[in-house]
Amino acid sequence: MADIYLALIHYPVYDKDRKIVTTSITNMDIHDIARSARTYGVRRYFVVTPVRTLQALADKILDHWQSGYGSVYNKTRKDALALVSVTDDLDSAIRMIQQETGERPRLVATSARAGSRRTTFTQIRHRVEQAGPPLLFLLGTGWGLTEEMLEQTDDILEPIHGVGAYNHLSVRSATAILLDRLRGAR
Amino acid sequence: MADIYLALIHYPVYDKDRKIVTTSITNMDIHDIARSARTYGVRRYFVVTPVRTLQALADKILDHWQSGYGSVYNKTRKDALALVSVTDDLDSAIRMIQQETGERPRLVATSARAGSRRTTFTQIRHRVEQAGPPLLFLLGTGWGLTEEMLEQTDDILEPIHGVGAYNHLSVRSATAILLDRLRGAR
Repeated sequence: MADIYLALIHYPVYDKDRKIVTTSITNMDIHDIARSARTYGVRRYFVVTPVRTLQALADKILDHWQSGYGSVYNKTRKDALALVSVTDDLDSAIRMIQQETGERPRLVATSARAGSRRTTFTQIRHRVEQAGPPLLFLLGTGWGLTEEMLEQTDDILEPIHGVGAYNHLSVRSATAILLDRLRGAR
Repeated sequence: MADIYLALIHYPVYDKDRKIVTTSITNMDIHDIARSARTYGVRRYFVVTPVRTLQALADKILDHWQSGYGSVYNKTRKDALALVSVTDDLDSAIRMIQQETGERPRLVATSARAGSRRTTFTQIRHRVEQAGPPLLFLLGTGWGLTEEMLEQTDDILEPIHGVGAYNHLSVRSATAILLDRLRGAR
């Protein structure tokens, strides 16, 4: 089974007017995605931001649950947040994965937008089930990953469809569904 | 296809020491679950709390996105939050469903705990796909729905399993996975 890694990208992403911006780190993104990651056996969850003060905020949250009062109050939260690493950029995350596994990860972008080059969940699940290089899934914040970033990846995963045209899941919900589709019991 | 309803229960639920408490309403629970509900064609999402000040908080959030500045800033959020109704208790939610559909809903509890009487996702999906009474899924906050509440329901859905023993998904993530398993494309 291939290792799964996640990277939550705060820069570069679009805002609602399709300008390229840096989004803020939110407490709930760290917690919810770490808990989903822990549930589905993700190897590491990178929180990616170039902003030092936001890195410090993330470190403070992690410290509270890793070694502060939170670690005693809620052990399950400690176990989940142990998976989180804060990095400056995607390249730093890739380097850490290479150090950990000895292999360059295959990059898989996620997007709520349809487009010409899309890989299906079935195809990616098949890859996850086989022995192969680690897979690093890029999760966008704000209004999603930039086109330039999508072009750098090996695969762009098809959007999650529900029962209609509405496709505005939170990144927390979309990541939970993604992991369940790729690693959930069938 | 049977109608799906959700009810996020803030009382009665367990705290970490298994005492029965009322939890607080959180902004993120309202938003994330409403967005998942809208994506998967849920008919209505009830936020259930007996506490007047928390009902007022929920109403304020809904008002901001329904008719305040938020409704102009982000139309997709308005569409999602249009599904939300705040009620005092479960009985009020059941009455509203009866008024809306003419039928008493079948109650399906969700739980992260294993137990003797559990219905599988496959069984519930089968029921969702058929014409039949509406299904009302009860979602617990805090450390989950009380045993007494579970006993009042028609079904208790099996827990969501990932790849190990860890079963501490957020209610937001668990609800997203639940809806995808019951209504997602196969």
